[in-house]
Amino acid sequence: MFQNNSRTELSELGEFGLIKHLSQFIRLKNESSVKGIGDDAAVIDCKEKMTIVSTDMLVEGVHFDLSYVPLKHLGYKAVSVNLSDIYAMNAVPEQITVSIALSNRFSMEAVEELYSGMILACDKHDVDIIGGDTTSSTSGLIISITAIGTAGKNDIVYRNTAKETNLICVSGDLGGAYVGLQLLEREKQVFKENPKIQPELEGNDYILERQLKPEARRDIQELLKTLQLKPTSMIDVSDGLASDLLHICTQSDVGCNLYEDKIPIDPNMYRNAREFNLDPTVCALSGGEDYELLFTIAQADYEKIKNNPDITVIGHITNKNSGYNLISKSGTQHPLTAQGWDALLKK
Amino acid sequence: MFQNNSRTELSELGEFGLIKHLSQFIRLKNESSVKGIGDDAAVIDCKEKMTIVSTDMLVEGVHFDLSYVPLKHLGYKAVSVNLSDIYAMNAVPEQITVSIALSNRFSMEAVEELYSGMILACDKHDVDIIGGDTTSSTSGLIISITAIGTAGKNDIVYRNTAKETNLICVSGDLGGAYVGLQLLEREKQVFKENPKIQPELEGNDYILERQLKPEARRDIQELLKTLQLKPTSMIDVSDGLASDLLHICTQSDVGCNLYEDKIPIDPNMYRNAREFNLDPTVCALSGGEDYELLFTIAQADYEKIKNNPDITVIGHITNKNSGYNLISKSGTQHPLTAQGWDALLKK
Repeated sequence: MFQNNSRTELSELGEFGLIKHLSQFIRLKNESSVKGIGDDAAVIDCKEKMTIVSTDMLVEGVHFDLSYVPLKHLGYKAVSVNLSDIYAMNAVPEQITVSIALSNRFSMEAVEELYSGMILACDKHDVDIIGGDTTSSTSGLIISITAIGTAGKNDIVYRNTAKETNLICVSGDLGGAYVGLQLLEREKQVFKENPKIQPELEGNDYILERQLKPEARRDIQELLKTLQLKPTSMIDVSDGLASDLLHICTQSDVGCNLYEDKIPIDPNMYRNAREFNLDPTVCALSGGEDYELLFTIAQADYEKIKNNPDITVIGHITNKNSGYNLISKSGTQHPLTAQGWDALLKK
Repeated sequence: MFQNNSRTELSELGEFGLIKHLSQFIRLKNESSVKGIGDDAAVIDCKEKMTIVSTDMLVEGVHFDLSYVPLKHLGYKAVSVNLSDIYAMNAVPEQITVSIALSNRFSMEAVEELYSGMILACDKHDVDIIGGDTTSSTSGLIISITAIGTAGKNDIVYRNTAKETNLICVSGDLGGAYVGLQLLEREKQVFKENPKIQPELEGNDYILERQLKPEARRDIQELLKTLQLKPTSMIDVSDGLASDLLHICTQSDVGCNLYEDKIPIDPNMYRNAREFNLDPTVCALSGGEDYELLFTIAQADYEKIKNNPDITVIGHITNKNSGYNLISKSGTQHPLTAQGWDALLKK
């Protein structure tokens, strides 16, 4: 099946490259497997309803640093991240399974802290922990969560169904989680150099919470239902606005115009980004981990959301041939690219 | 919710202790969550059918050693282990999600090898890979798989429903996977001391396959269906016959008599166990990783299985007050205890 005479570094491919490469070998055989790899979550046909499944793995040293992330927050975030994927399918999460691997440097009390955060998030979203696996690890902590939800067959919103002239909307504001992380990293360095100095985090609760304790947007999914508004496509902002909007566009085979001056940015994020000498727009475009919902709607549905302070129209879908564009505040057009954090840090 | 003023080592609790401890804080809220923690898999009510969910995590250096486990076999085993849990609920697996964390010492070709084994196992069981997550790890390889299956509401077999006088049955033979592991460990040591010596594995394909490429017993689940035989309780043998039978007994609130001379043992396993100066019965009782199905049936159903060479009656369920007993070949009664590998290695 595979050719294995060469060595291709994973770093050359990247996560999306690897997934794309592996996907070509994966065929769906069961009638019940409605949607496999390629969206926020998979969809299983259970006749009366659809079952939605999403899974995420968090690795210590890669996704979190326990020197400044409290275990309770980590548990909360691990659950939020997964539920966010279910909401991004316009579905309702109901269960999760939790697998953790931990080394013997963790005590039972530490595991309790982690679980207390997970249980808190589950309670907030009326979700049940129905199973999992606990095992030892040789080094750090690894958390793998699978979230399961339900949706009516016609309610599910995929990534690949955006249409030309659709409006691009996003909930909340963007970039905060990334700038919050910069703040935590800076204080970690200060602490390393002089453990007696108290961390300067005051007044920045908002962006710190965006990083440490993100909220999956249950309220937006519920709002859409109340408004009887079915988005034409939807994704959650985990990799960054640019990357996630490009997922919608490439999968839907359309282009986009995104307006810099429309991107919702919180003043706390703006001030801190400036302090770090970072461009707030770039933070919003490429920061990621915001777990807001990014979706497209038919123009006819604009009336339903226009007065909602929590939803912002940031652009529109165009013909594929027009490309992916960012229209700057000065009116200049730039190609929209998925840069990710690497590019940000090279600034 | 938790008391966190002390430090309890995870090693004091063990995996089952930790699960039991955490379970007390976990309450099911959704009507659709039929069965949570405590069986081979969780059960979700999807009205027409039930959805069965099971998850397992495999960690390099804990569950496998890549110095003698080929990646393709590892992929195959990772899937088998999960599907086995679904069959142990008398359900049919249909989908899996696969999350992997890997360090940069793995190439894309290595990941392909791993996936080729997973795909092979999936094809054998008509199961779809519908999603997952790929991420980096700071050290080894971690694989977390969630298997999803379906079952009719009345077909599901739990662990906690064994009844007095039921017959205890097991498929296949036991202890082979453990002795296969001893063989691999020995050859690894030999190789370490002198890399020029060829490994002596010939003639031991059976127990090596039991360790490296275990088969989830789809055939047994199908056989039970054909025979119109619904076990009164069922579990898969992952921790070892003793430990897994004790799970059935404690959860069903019953006792058991297990007969040493009835335990199915393969001649290849027997010969190798002897060479390693191990008691073959102890290997079968405590070795684990056999992924056979251990189940109880009503005496009235004995006729249905008595001529099947692949199913062995190894004992019967008794009143709780009679305790958990192993009747040795000489007729002596010993208390049946879950010793696990530690005890084995101390021999």
